[in-house]
Amino acid sequence: MAVYTDISDQELAELLADYDLGAAVSFKGVAEGVENSNFLLETEAGRYFLTVYERRVRPEDLPFFLGLMRWLAEHGYPCARPVADRAGRELQIVRGKPCAIVEFLPGLSVRRPSVAHCRAAGAGLARLHLAAAGFPQARANDLGEAAWAPLFADLRDAAERLKPGLAAVVEADLATITADWPQDLPAGIIHADYFPDNVFFQAGAFAGAIDFYFACNDALAYDIAIALNAWCFEPDGSFNVTSARALVAGYETVRPLSDPERAALPVLAHGAAMRFFLTRLNDWGATPAGALVRPKDPLEYERKLAVHRAAPDLVLFGAPG
Amino acid sequence: MAVYTDISDQELAELLADYDLGAAVSFKGVAEGVENSNFLLETEAGRYFLTVYERRVRPEDLPFFLGLMRWLAEHGYPCARPVADRAGRELQIVRGKPCAIVEFLPGLSVRRPSVAHCRAAGAGLARLHLAAAGFPQARANDLGEAAWAPLFADLRDAAERLKPGLAAVVEADLATITADWPQDLPAGIIHADYFPDNVFFQAGAFAGAIDFYFACNDALAYDIAIALNAWCFEPDGSFNVTSARALVAGYETVRPLSDPERAALPVLAHGAAMRFFLTRLNDWGATPAGALVRPKDPLEYERKLAVHRAAPDLVLFGAPG
Repeated sequence: MAVYTDISDQELAELLADYDLGAAVSFKGVAEGVENSNFLLETEAGRYFLTVYERRVRPEDLPFFLGLMRWLAEHGYPCARPVADRAGRELQIVRGKPCAIVEFLPGLSVRRPSVAHCRAAGAGLARLHLAAAGFPQARANDLGEAAWAPLFADLRDAAERLKPGLAAVVEADLATITADWPQDLPAGIIHADYFPDNVFFQAGAFAGAIDFYFACNDALAYDIAIALNAWCFEPDGSFNVTSARALVAGYETVRPLSDPERAALPVLAHGAAMRFFLTRLNDWGATPAGALVRPKDPLEYERKLAVHRAAPDLVLFGAPG
Repeated sequence: MAVYTDISDQELAELLADYDLGAAVSFKGVAEGVENSNFLLETEAGRYFLTVYERRVRPEDLPFFLGLMRWLAEHGYPCARPVADRAGRELQIVRGKPCAIVEFLPGLSVRRPSVAHCRAAGAGLARLHLAAAGFPQARANDLGEAAWAPLFADLRDAAERLKPGLAAVVEADLATITADWPQDLPAGIIHADYFPDNVFFQAGAFAGAIDFYFACNDALAYDIAIALNAWCFEPDGSFNVTSARALVAGYETVRPLSDPERAALPVLAHGAAMRFFLTRLNDWGATPAGALVRPKDPLEYERKLAVHRAAPDLVLFGAPG
């Protein structure tokens, strides 16, 4: 949680001069998002969010992300709609970095999701999958299953430093996941980072999603698997089968799963845990001591990997395998 | 700029249950203020700021600060008015720390104040001095002139590490300041931290002040001296006499200075530079390497000290001494 890029009142006024939003009334950097710098911007026309894209986001991907957000908003999905300037441009440059103004999305994320939150979040994810259908752009999932083995090849030593003996265990996991990975599931646009901090609620009801900067094309059920890992583990590391059942049931109120999708959930969940374990392990090793942002703990996802390894049927809600 | 205390949606709901503000609609940590944690809070009733007071603020001083903000708002001064809960309490506890909800104050601070901003800021400071008159509480300035020599006694080594030979120079400054320090100037409530980031503008006009957590009783002209140091130095370290003249002239449109106040400005400005030099030097030495907040550079105020030492008449706008 940080603001990496500092925008002066003068730079803001120059940026707003291209828009029909009037003058700035208030402007505050917010501690939201770890990848980009975010500012809550109030103008004479209303409230907005200004995001300055930092090093993690590839500029060539930004038209996809902003186009998706516009598409979703236009198709009834509650997300922050990008605002175009008078020339029709959504993407701008400030301090040499790409930036965009989006509409303000009300709502609060929840720290410890209840079973009811999981159900509502599941339904919200299915709504996203349906609303995104027909979006004309595509983006490959560069953190998808094919990327994990090559990524891990550079992280063997880091895994051993984290926990001696871990490299061999992860390698065996990767072999299992690759062997069992489903190939022909229904695919489309996925959020790919549908964690509780990226989902808003109001009065307990789903109110929208933010942070589409990992969105890409992949199996829709893989997005559910990411969410099961992010929403349904207790702080003590145990998997909450009731929450998982609620998340999937909520999803299916909007978009029922096919039998192959349901059958694939165990390996998809194992794989989703692998994806976040690997990127966290990578960040953990790459972050210098004393950096302003603390990397997320890779051990959290190492423990989730172990849960899926030991009991893959858990994500099928405790039913016998 | 940081959020030190993390408030969950559940903790926020429990806090709001005591107020007549409805439920939370949006809640975002903001990168504003280095001493406390600040959150922009929208509820069904409107927009507010939640401040969680961290270690620097003494809890016993909070009734003074909140009482002053309420008094100022009730006396026509644009500042954030504290909001009381149904039991009339402005001060609450969250995560074991004191906190308060205040009304949202629109406006933007300026990075590089123009001469016109300095004039408006001066008038805004005089308005504050007049609006605070009659406020029934008092707080001694624990960072006032009497505190500087004792504070420096512990910082001699730090000064020498910063710049060899500096300790003797600062000691001579302290002797001059003590000898010349005025005793009977008009006194009252001062802001004591009237820096550009604590002053809001809208469309170029003064829109209010924030961050009253150094406010105390002292000579009113000393507050001007703090502002002259904070607003009227150029990035290259030179003192902008035009900005200074505008700041004082703006002040005098609201509250004309007496002859003794005007005559005291050079030593007050020298002293104000000393106060910020000493506290920055203290923070600089006390902050461990790799801390999340970078201390402000004491050398900025060391250079300001040197300007006042060499040419005290500068703050009298270049008039011959």
